Parts: sequence; C-alpha cells; structure tokens
Amino acid sequence: MKKKSKKVNAAILIIGNEILSGRTQDKNIAFISNWLNSNCGISVLEVRIIPDVEKKIIQNIKSLSKEFNYVFTTGGIGPTHDDITAKSLAKAFKIKYGYHKEAFQILENYYGKKKFNDGRKKMAKMPVTAKLIYNPSSAAPGFMIKNVLSLPGVPSILNSMIENCKKYLVKGLKVHSKTINLFTVESNISKQLEAIQKKYRKFVDIGSYPFFRLGKIGVSIVSRSTSKIKLTNVNRDLMKIVKVKKIKILNI
Amino acid sequence: MKKKSKKVNAAILIIGNEILSGRTQDKNIAFISNWLNSNCGISVLEVRIIPDVEKKIIQNIKSLSKEFNYVFTTGGIGPTHDDITAKSLAKAFKIKYGYHKEAFQILENYYGKKKFNDGRKKMAKMPVTAKLIYNPSSAAPGFMIKNVLSLPGVPSILNSMIENCKKYLVKGLKVHSKTINLFTVESNISKQLEAIQKKYRKFVDIGSYPFFRLGKIGVSIVSRSTSKIKLTNVNRDLMKIVKVKKIKILNI
Repeated sequence: MKKKSKKVNAAILIIGNEILSGRTQDKNIAFISNWLNSNCGISVLEVRIIPDVEKKIIQNIKSLSKEFNYVFTTGGIGPTHDDITAKSLAKAFKIKYGYHKEAFQILENYYGKKKFNDGRKKMAKMPVTAKLIYNPSSAAPGFMIKNVLSLPGVPSILNSMIENCKKYLVKGLKVHSKTINLFTVESNISKQLEAIQKKYRKFVDIGSYPFFRLGKIGVSIVSRSTSKIKLTNVNRDLMKIVKVKKIKILNI
Repeated sequence: MKKKSKKVNAAILIIGNEILSGRTQDKNIAFISNWLNSNCGISVLEVRIIPDVEKKIIQNIKSLSKEFNYVFTTGGIGPTHDDITAKSLAKAFKIKYGYHKEAFQILENYYGKKKFNDGRKKMAKMPVTAKLIYNPSSAAPGFMIKNVLSLPGVPSILNSMIENCKKYLVKGLKVHSKTINLFTVESNISKQLEAIQKKYRKFVDIGSYPFFRLGKIGVSIVSRSTSKIKLTNVNRDLMKIVKVKKIKILNI
C-alpha cells in the first residue's frame, strides 16, 4: 500500500433488490466506510443503492468511477441469475467478460473437479483482466477492475475479505473525529456552534445530532478533521460554551 | 389518498455526514421502503446517501425528482448550522426560502413565545409554498415541495410522522413477496432458478440470498410481484425443483 499525504475518497454502490425493498437491513455501508477511514485514510463521500438491473449498474459505475478515486460495489457476484455485477462492469468498461484464469483455478481447487458445476463456474466469470480480491471464507474471489472493487453482499464474507483490498489502494489522510455528548437541546447551542463552524470551516466539519439516552434528550457534537490539533482547538471552544451555558456533559 | 392501478416509484435521499462516515447505522431506508410498499404500493427504486453539502443536495434533488414519482429526503431539517436541506430544496426548485406561516405558528405555540429562540425559529424556515408534514413527536414539521417529501433523520421522530405523508401520495400497486428458505447452496439450483425467472420475467422478480442459520448454510428464494397468482405459480414451480433435488425446507 502506497502512502500519500492528500485526501482520497470513495463511493459505495450497493447492488441489490433486497436492500431497496427493505427486506434486508444493510450492514455493509457503515462497515466499509469505517474500515476505509481507519485503515486507509479514505473517506466515503457518496453511497447509492440500486436494483439488480444491468442498465442501472452500468450507468452508476460510469458516473461514480469518474467522480471518485475508488468505487466499492457490494452484491451480485454469486452463482445465480440475479448476480449480474461482474458482467455489467465488463460492459461498463468495455472489457471482455469471461473465465478469469486464476479465479477458475481457485474455485476448481476449492470444490474439486466433480463438484465444480456451471453455477460455481459462473463465479469465475468477470472482466478477464481484473485483479482478484481473495476470499478466505468461501473461495469465490472479489475483483478490482479500473478503480472499482467488487465485493459480495453477505456481510460476514465481505468482512473477511476487506483486508485483501488494502494492497490495491492508495492511502490518504485519515479523518479523525471527536465527540462531545451534552444534555441540552440543539436550539440552545445552535448560534454558538455555527460561529465555531465558521471559525474552523476550512479544517473541521462539525455535526450536531440529537439523541435520547437515560431518559433524557441530548446532543452529540461530532467534529471531524484530518488535523488532530484543530480538533483539540474546536473542543476547547466547545467547552467554553458548555461552561457559560452550564450544560451537563454526558461524556467526551 | 387517491387510488391508481399502476406502478408508482420513489427514491430516498439520505442527507448526513454521520451515515456516510459510518458513525451512525442507517435505519430509515428499510423503514421507509417497507412502509411505502405496504401502505401505499410505492416501490423504492434508488437510494442515495450524500453529505451535508448544498451543491450535492441541489444536484441530487434535481435529478432524482425528475426520474422518480416521489423523492423522500431524511435529515438536515433541524436548528443547527449543518441543517441545510430546506434551504437547498428551495434553491433547487427556485422557490423563496423563508418563514412558513403555519410552521411558525405551530412551533411558537409548542415552545411558547419566550422559549421560541432563533434556533427554533429556523425550523419554520423552508420553501414558503411547501405543504407541511405534521410531527406528533417534537412539533417541528417536515414538508413537501413539488414531489419531494422532507423528513427528519432521527428514526423515532421520522417513524411517528410517516403516516402524515399518506395524504400527499398517489397510491400504486403493492408488490407482494413470497420467501422459501431452503437448506441448499445457490449453485445447486441456479440453473433451474434461471429457467423459472425467464418463464415469469415479465411479472415476477426472483432473488436468491444465501443465509447461515442453525449452523447450516441455506438459500432464501424471494419472489416479488404485483400479482399474487403469479407468485403462487412461481412457488409451485420452485417446489417441483425442491422435490426432484430432495432439498430440505427450513420454512415457506
């Protein structure tokens, strides 16, 4: 993994009717986003969830791969008819779709020649020039083509594979965050918060999120920045408000 | 709520750095999608998650509101500086942004004149011609402008408001679904499943999703259609495969 001292971003494209319909609660977005930031200093700046429709996949891959440094897709790389991610990506990038030699070998070794049926063979089909993302759980590899990394939709399998994406990624600046949880309401501090955000607008993003805990209403103030020093400065300014307004702190 | 016998669709636009960063696990997508389908026969066909950035909100609102019958936004309608959804929507549709008379009245009554500070007043600011979506939890209303319905990001508040969207929506055909959970692997049935999908391609979407339960690997076959009869036919065909292949059924 190469190191770089600049901001690197990514988009996530979730491909799957089961997430759109509400049947399945997505768990991959938060996992990938947290992992990318913590391990690679890469910030996810957009997520899209789309159905298993070839035209939609091609359209979104084309636009997202232009706009962002990396695109992570999840879902649609299994053996059934609704798994059309690999084929759609090949079409989007006009690369031949067919058996990937190394992927075919991996799967044939895993299942044995007798049990390596057509369904399983389909999982070796992808853009033929793709680089593989190895899968320690169930053999069927993910792959990277251009700046797009394709992972499966099953969270436990995806989680086991994510470390194998690292070697393909250029490292960026990690975004650090600090959270202060206060027992107050947003409208009590909104003016002061805005002033702090303006003061640090070039360096820090400050978000304010209401919560209900221990039967009380509160606000989480989350500051995010690539600079730890700026975060410390923001927190110092926040604590001044807390003191003046006599706000109870849940935790910092 | 008017009735219609055609397909009606929607997109969801989640506005919030906290979801993108992975700090907060989204719960609104599955809730809204399930509610829309069950109560209004409206299918969610795309979801986007974007940061609290005005340009991004305007861009996405413009494209999604053209492409889909309805757009639901969540987040960014509170009292703090990072709540910019209402202003961005006004800009996207070139409608005046200012105090909404009815919203102002509702909030003033709720807080009382003395406690109705600037932060709270901000929650009455929106495109001035918007229709309100009443909020039984915390007074601050959501609103509808053109075909866009804006709801808050806090799930408990959003959930309490969703029924108040109904009067603004044209009803479509409900998508029914049937699920068969089998103790088998996808590759064992992928060929037969594809044949069934081809047979019913105009009427039914068949999805296949691996699961791990009771220590065993299995597959959920989910069929979705606006026609209950077609679903019954698909299930009959599926049961033929199950019988021939001697596959154990977890449940139907």
